[in-house]
Amino acid sequence: MQWLNFDKLEAYKKLEGLAGRVDLKTVMAGEEGAKRVAAYQAPMAENMVFSYAARPVDDTLLDTLQILADEAQLTEKYAALYNGEVINTGEKRQVLHQLCRGQLGDDVIVDGVNKRAFYVEQQKKAAAFAEKVHSGEIVCEDGGKFTTAVQIGIGGSDLGPRALYLALENWAKVNGTLKMQARFISNVDPDDATSVLSDIDLAHALFIVVSKSGTTLETLTNEMFVKEALVKAGLDPKRHMAAVTSETSPLAGNPDYLEAVYMDDYIGGRYSSSSAVGAVILSLAFGPEVYAEILDGAAAEDALAKNTDIRQNPDMLDALIGVYERNFLGYAMTAVLPYSQALIRFPAHLQQLDMESNGKSVNRFGEPVSYQTGPILFGEPGTNGQHSFYQLLHQGTTIVPIQFVGFKKNQMDNDVVIENSTSQQKLSANVAAQIMAFACGKDAEDPNKYFAGGRGSSIIVGDKLTPGALGALLAHFENKVMFQGFVWNVNSFDQEGVQLGKVLAKRVLAKDTDGALTAYSELLGIF
Amino acid sequence: MQWLNFDKLEAYKKLEGLAGRVDLKTVMAGEEGAKRVAAYQAPMAENMVFSYAARPVDDTLLDTLQILADEAQLTEKYAALYNGEVINTGEKRQVLHQLCRGQLGDDVIVDGVNKRAFYVEQQKKAAAFAEKVHSGEIVCEDGGKFTTAVQIGIGGSDLGPRALYLALENWAKVNGTLKMQARFISNVDPDDATSVLSDIDLAHALFIVVSKSGTTLETLTNEMFVKEALVKAGLDPKRHMAAVTSETSPLAGNPDYLEAVYMDDYIGGRYSSSSAVGAVILSLAFGPEVYAEILDGAAAEDALAKNTDIRQNPDMLDALIGVYERNFLGYAMTAVLPYSQALIRFPAHLQQLDMESNGKSVNRFGEPVSYQTGPILFGEPGTNGQHSFYQLLHQGTTIVPIQFVGFKKNQMDNDVVIENSTSQQKLSANVAAQIMAFACGKDAEDPNKYFAGGRGSSIIVGDKLTPGALGALLAHFENKVMFQGFVWNVNSFDQEGVQLGKVLAKRVLAKDTDGALTAYSELLGIF
Repeated sequence: MQWLNFDKLEAYKKLEGLAGRVDLKTVMAGEEGAKRVAAYQAPMAENMVFSYAARPVDDTLLDTLQILADEAQLTEKYAALYNGEVINTGEKRQVLHQLCRGQLGDDVIVDGVNKRAFYVEQQKKAAAFAEKVHSGEIVCEDGGKFTTAVQIGIGGSDLGPRALYLALENWAKVNGTLKMQARFISNVDPDDATSVLSDIDLAHALFIVVSKSGTTLETLTNEMFVKEALVKAGLDPKRHMAAVTSETSPLAGNPDYLEAVYMDDYIGGRYSSSSAVGAVILSLAFGPEVYAEILDGAAAEDALAKNTDIRQNPDMLDALIGVYERNFLGYAMTAVLPYSQALIRFPAHLQQLDMESNGKSVNRFGEPVSYQTGPILFGEPGTNGQHSFYQLLHQGTTIVPIQFVGFKKNQMDNDVVIENSTSQQKLSANVAAQIMAFACGKDAEDPNKYFAGGRGSSIIVGDKLTPGALGALLAHFENKVMFQGFVWNVNSFDQEGVQLGKVLAKRVLAKDTDGALTAYSELLGIF
Repeated sequence: MQWLNFDKLEAYKKLEGLAGRVDLKTVMAGEEGAKRVAAYQAPMAENMVFSYAARPVDDTLLDTLQILADEAQLTEKYAALYNGEVINTGEKRQVLHQLCRGQLGDDVIVDGVNKRAFYVEQQKKAAAFAEKVHSGEIVCEDGGKFTTAVQIGIGGSDLGPRALYLALENWAKVNGTLKMQARFISNVDPDDATSVLSDIDLAHALFIVVSKSGTTLETLTNEMFVKEALVKAGLDPKRHMAAVTSETSPLAGNPDYLEAVYMDDYIGGRYSSSSAVGAVILSLAFGPEVYAEILDGAAAEDALAKNTDIRQNPDMLDALIGVYERNFLGYAMTAVLPYSQALIRFPAHLQQLDMESNGKSVNRFGEPVSYQTGPILFGEPGTNGQHSFYQLLHQGTTIVPIQFVGFKKNQMDNDVVIENSTSQQKLSANVAAQIMAFACGKDAEDPNKYFAGGRGSSIIVGDKLTPGALGALLAHFENKVMFQGFVWNVNSFDQEGVQLGKVLAKRVLAKDTDGALTAYSELLGIF
């Protein structure tokens, strides 16, 4: 297996020569366009479809992207990853998040531990803990059941689990599986904790402190914040706190917590929703069965990602088209626009996933790369975005590739017919319309009303946003980011870029500053 | 007054010649950096400060930006706007949102109506309505008071008011001025309405339907959705609904609403928080006095924006530095990163404000422009973002200019000292640290730990996020966008780019489709 820079590959030059050959406005028009929609689909897990007809590729480009996939050994690298090679070279670690949700290859043994067995054990521990809380075996001081679970964590301990919780909260309400309400405290802004605490029934609240090292500034601060509030309310923090942490952290095996469920160094924060980080809070909220369905959906998508034929591998295909857009069409951004209000925080999770993984300027050997890497990602649910920033997407001077997500049915089985269509039909009609408006544009005499078109998008379509579909979506984007990292030859699994700010913040708090750092500290009235 | 394209100005060539002259890493280092922080500040309203020391400008560039401001006649154009000229040329309308919060110039008379008097009258109507609801003069069927106000609106009728409500909800709780809880229904996704309705006490909920034309698809659909739910619950919709609309809409003077407060065509949706669109919901939530404080803060900032000296005009200065970064340094994005959890949805509002206003490819006369216009804007609160996408901002291949916002005090007067500092101190220490980390970077032997620096940011610092400070922030960004629109010579006050999607969605719902539009409609299972 070879780890070559992208611009050293033969396929790089081939793609350079093909750049810009597809005029979306032409290929998406008329019956030709309809044929394209039928042809340019890849099946995803959970009966979902990745439709890429409106992205600026054709068969020649797809064939060349297949050559790139082969030359960059994407399938081999994925196999190396799930078979336990040290893919996170910077930190000299395996990358094992897929192992939480199924066995794709060999047993992975690290330091004598079978990691799959370890992850399953922790999932069982999370499930058993949740069941004890639900059954009333673990109760509050007043003998009542816990009604609210509050995750205290930041970054990957917050964004992924929060996005997944919000994605399924309404689904669970309708399906009778909302066992507990979940809330999240993340920001070191004291008003974040105060706001959540003032809004819940503290006597019946269970807090999950999530920190791998047990030393995350924001999380430990918020834990102390919450403990003070519990004590002030005459409650015993030990009866209200559980921990998700590594086995070597100060939170592990500590009698201050009702339970400690373990994570390890082989799953990065942004990939940790499938680990204990997601398992505890989501099992508490929805029950372990629902959590298992999320993992099953993700596992099915992981399995699809093994396909060497990119047309049968939606995650790899999405990755490759994205690379083509980034490096040969010069698009620096990606908008993720789910037509589902439940996915309101999913783009915020993807922002971390994508930008923290591939926002790098050096390759996996620490050498500067001479091409663009990870894009900037943002998004909001449609139709809301249509009444907001879509103006720029349609008529601005910068082109932003779009990833739509849509579902045939809504989650809550409640809808009304108004003017001959349901709200769900209106929602879906809008996303169909947007794809075509972006692709084909519209001529007009009034130049204000002219739409250039040629703005590409793909759409993932599912039946309904169920736990399984959500898991498949989660894995799709994780795998997409992984494959792009392989192509760009970067290490997608470290995040050295977050360290410098931490070091400087500590210096401010220790009053060990000079120059402009002192001046800013004074401006902000820190001391 | 002349409306010339940006690249026709003398200052354009001058700036081109100066591009890239400032090495932030050098100028922000040592005592020189401290002096820069002291010098490069502009006072804002409400005792706030706009600090631009860490943006890539120097005195020569600032002098040239002053030349640009003068040559582009920014002050004159602003004066023309507030004195009632038809600045929204596409739609042939005045632009009057500033008039809602104070009189900057002449009386503006449109069709015989004194618009300032009209806006004041509507504010009084909103206040009187809110007071009647608060006092119990207007009550629910059971004689009880309304406890929740629900805004039904989308785009500007949702994003701005929602961002402002969330920004002050905790402040109001602590200050005893949270009169009613506010909720928002925006998306045509039926689960949005169902979710809100299932979460509130319907018998004591007051709905505000906000649509200028009275014909917005999403809003009318959600209104019907809510009415059906009210009827199903044995409640009379007429006793639960008020309207914010134009005087000529079907919602005006209609006995189906408890009250109708009016807006007009001279205030665009994204600028409408200062109009009845914000007045009704925010007066209900916080009381009319608090709403008036927001407007006062905005008015004070509007007054500052009249300064011809850009160093004394934070809104214009921010605009001009942004233009320099966009057109001469080639930065296509802006990240807005408030170190305040209360501003969680403020970036979403700014996304509409900025991208819908200046995401244009034609000038105000409809001629294509040959330079970049409005940037792509995104953001999340810090410190959360630090554990998410900051990796790319520090070490990615694409540079993103940053706008930080910070406050000396938190809103909720509740904080704890942990390891010798409060959470608020930790929060502020982090933003100070980030500014310096981005600007100066850090050398390192390990290339993974190398930070190139040279990544610019500004910060707005306030004492506390009060209603007045929030109003000043709101106006700052509105005025920034306005001045940038003047420089780019675009019409920042129309949004023709949202029309095509609407037209195509209607065709889908009418089953009047062909080609790929039919194929997508089938893929999405619309019919």
